[in-house]
Amino acid sequence: MGLIVQKFGGSSVKNAERLFHVAKIVTDTYAKGNSVIVVVSAQGDTTDDLLEKAAEINPQASKREMDVLLNTGEMISISLLAMAIEKLGYPVISLTGWQAGFLSDSNHGNARIRRINTERVENEIHKGNIVIVAGFQGLNRYDDLTTLGRGGSDTSAVALAAALSADKCQIFTDVDGVYTADPRLVKTARKIDEITYDEMLELATLGAQVLHNRSVEMAKKYSVNLEVVSSLENKPGTQIKEVVKVEKMLIKGVARDNDVARISVIGLPDQPGIAFRVFSLLSAKKINVDIILQSIGREGTKDISFTVSRSHRQQAVDLLNEVKESLGAKEILCDENISKISIVGAGMQSNPGVASKMFEALGEANINIQMISTSEIKISVLIDRKDSERALSVVHDAFAI
Amino acid sequence: MGLIVQKFGGSSVKNAERLFHVAKIVTDTYAKGNSVIVVVSAQGDTTDDLLEKAAEINPQASKREMDVLLNTGEMISISLLAMAIEKLGYPVISLTGWQAGFLSDSNHGNARIRRINTERVENEIHKGNIVIVAGFQGLNRYDDLTTLGRGGSDTSAVALAAALSADKCQIFTDVDGVYTADPRLVKTARKIDEITYDEMLELATLGAQVLHNRSVEMAKKYSVNLEVVSSLENKPGTQIKEVVKVEKMLIKGVARDNDVARISVIGLPDQPGIAFRVFSLLSAKKINVDIILQSIGREGTKDISFTVSRSHRQQAVDLLNEVKESLGAKEILCDENISKISIVGAGMQSNPGVASKMFEALGEANINIQMISTSEIKISVLIDRKDSERALSVVHDAFAI
Repeated sequence: MGLIVQKFGGSSVKNAERLFHVAKIVTDTYAKGNSVIVVVSAQGDTTDDLLEKAAEINPQASKREMDVLLNTGEMISISLLAMAIEKLGYPVISLTGWQAGFLSDSNHGNARIRRINTERVENEIHKGNIVIVAGFQGLNRYDDLTTLGRGGSDTSAVALAAALSADKCQIFTDVDGVYTADPRLVKTARKIDEITYDEMLELATLGAQVLHNRSVEMAKKYSVNLEVVSSLENKPGTQIKEVVKVEKMLIKGVARDNDVARISVIGLPDQPGIAFRVFSLLSAKKINVDIILQSIGREGTKDISFTVSRSHRQQAVDLLNEVKESLGAKEILCDENISKISIVGAGMQSNPGVASKMFEALGEANINIQMISTSEIKISVLIDRKDSERALSVVHDAFAI
Repeated sequence: MGLIVQKFGGSSVKNAERLFHVAKIVTDTYAKGNSVIVVVSAQGDTTDDLLEKAAEINPQASKREMDVLLNTGEMISISLLAMAIEKLGYPVISLTGWQAGFLSDSNHGNARIRRINTERVENEIHKGNIVIVAGFQGLNRYDDLTTLGRGGSDTSAVALAAALSADKCQIFTDVDGVYTADPRLVKTARKIDEITYDEMLELATLGAQVLHNRSVEMAKKYSVNLEVVSSLENKPGTQIKEVVKVEKMLIKGVARDNDVARISVIGLPDQPGIAFRVFSLLSAKKINVDIILQSIGREGTKDISFTVSRSHRQQAVDLLNEVKESLGAKEILCDENISKISIVGAGMQSNPGVASKMFEALGEANINIQMISTSEIKISVLIDRKDSERALSVVHDAFAI
C-alpha cells in the first residue's frame, strides 16, 4: 500500500478497448489499497491530427496558439479514461495540467516545469479519488497554456511523483522493459532487470526510446523509484534506481540514435573565444549541441564540427550562415546521413579495454568511425546511417550483453 | 469605431476555408478601427463526435467529465481561428472560457454564468490584440470546467458584450436575419428588420432557432445592442433592441417548436398544494415546465397537464412515477407527438381579434387545438405534430405577415 503514479502513453489509450484495459490496471492497483495518480498522453494519433489541422491553416502558427490546440489532446484522454473508470464503479476525477498545479516557464512548445502546486491533487487523493492528470501540459505565469515538448508526459509523471514523494512511478509502455538494444533491430537483445539512473539517462539520450531523458534526469535528482513496465503483459519490468546489484556485464546496452545531424564550421580563424561565440549563439536559441570535435586546419584556421538533433539542423545552419562573415568562417556544412551508436554501462569507466573492443568490432565489420565521444559511462561513435543496423548488431554481439 | 463582439457558430468555422472567411470578416472590422472580440463555438460536428466517443465508453458518464471533454471543442476552434488571423498578419490572441474570466455555477452541462472577470480581455484589447474567446465555457468555484448548455456560445457573446459595455454584439449565422416564420417551412416568410427583445424572446423560446432565449434575456437585461447577421452575405440583418419603429403588422412572426412533450398527471385528489408539490419536484431537478393546464376531474379529483422539453420527458415521468402514490395520482401519461405553434407580436395585447383569427385559421384547416397558452405578446397552441407544417402556413397566411 502506498502512493503510486502510473503513466500511460498515447498508444495505451488510443481507443475504447485500450482505455478499459488501462482502467483495469489502474483500478486493480487502487483496489489493493493504494492511492493512485494516473498521468496520460493524448490518444494515439491525436497530436499528429491536430498538427495537421494547424499546418493546413498556418504552417507558421505561433507556438502559443499551437499549445492551446495541443492541450486538447490530453484533455480528451483524461476525460475518457475517467469515464471508463466511472463505468467500472470507482471514484475518479480528471485534472488538466493547470488544475493539477503544473506551473511552467513560457517556452511554448518545449516548456520546463517550474513548480507543482500539489494542493488540488492531494485533496482529491484524500477524498479517495483516483486522480487522472493530463501529461505534457503546463501553465505559465501569464495564465497561458504551455506544452512540455517531447517526452513531456513522462516528465509530468516523474515530476508529480517527486512533488508528492510517491512510493513508485510506473511508466507503462508497449514493451516490457528496457533492453540491451532495440529488440526490433538486434535479435540477441535481452531485457535489463535493474539499471542506474545514469545508465538509463545515457540510454534515453541515445535514442532507446523507452523513456525521455528529461524524466530520467528528474527521477535521479529527486530519487524517484522509477519502473518501466508493459501495459500489455503482467510481468516485472525494469527498475531504475540509484544503486543496482552488480551484474557480471560491464555494458548495459547499445543504442542507436538517428535523430542527429552533423554541422561543420570550416576555416575559422584560430583565435581564443571563437568556439564560445559559435556555441553561445546556438544556446541562446535553445539548440542543444551534442558531440563536439575541434580540429586544427591549415594556415592558422580551425574547423569545428558538432551534432544537433535533426529538427534543429536548418535553424542552426541558418544562424551560422548569418554570422559566417563576422566569425570569419569559410563554409558551413551539414550532413544528415549519419547515426550515433553508443554503448552504456557504469562498469566501463575502470575498464580501458571497452573502447578498443567497440572500435575493433566496428573495424572488423568495415564500418568507418567519423567522430567519437566518451563519458564516464558511455562511448558514442558517429557513423554512416547505412551502416547503423549492422553496427548495432556487431557491437552488441562483441560484448555478448 | 467602437468595441464590437462578434459571435460565430460551429458551421461558420467548420473547416479551413470557413475559418479564413471568418478571419476576413473579423480583420475587416478591426481594420476599420474597431476593437474586436470574437466568440466562437466548436467546429461543425466536433461536439457530436466527442459525445459519440464518450457514449462508446460510458453512456452514464458524469457531467463533470463530459464538460472536460466538451471544452476541447471550442479550444480547437479558437486556436485555429487565431492561427488564421495570424496568417492574415493581424495581432491576435485566443482565450479559453476561464482565461477570459467566465465564472459559472456548478451545474455541469447547463451552467449559468455568475460573473465575468474581464481584466485579461481588457488587457489584450489595450495591447491592440483581436481577442478570440471560446464560447460555451465556464469555470466553477472549485476550478472545474463547465459548459453553458444549448445556445451557450450566444450567451457567452452577449454576456461579454454586457460586461464590457460593448457598442454592439453581432451574432453571425447561416441565415441573414430573423424571419416571420421558418423560411424552409413557410415560403411567404420574410425577414424582419427590427424586433424588440420581448418579441425575439418569444420567438427564440418558441423554436425560431436563430438565437437562444438565454442570450436574448441577457441582452434585454443589460440593454445589449444585438444584431443577427449573415456570415455568408454582406447585408443588413435583424436589429434586436428595446424600442423599434412601429410597423403596420401586429404579428412579428409565427414559430413552431417540436421539442415539446406533454405529460399528464391523472386523478389527483382535489386538495390545496397538490399542484405546488408536482411542480416543486420538477423545479428541484431543474426541469422547466411550459404550458400548464389544470382541469377538474370526476369525484373530487383533478388532472394536471403540462409540457416539458423532450430531453426532460423521461426524467419527469420517472420522477412523477416515484411519487405517484404519495401524491394520490392514478396515472402518469406522456405524449410526444405534439408541436407548439405560436404567434408573437407586441401589438396583440390591445387587439382581442388576434386570438380568434388564429383559432379560426386552424379550425378552417381542420387542425385540432389541444392546449392554449397566452401572454401579453404571444399566443401558443399545442397541436398534433403531423399537422404542424400546415398549421405554420395557414397561420402565417392568415396574418399576411
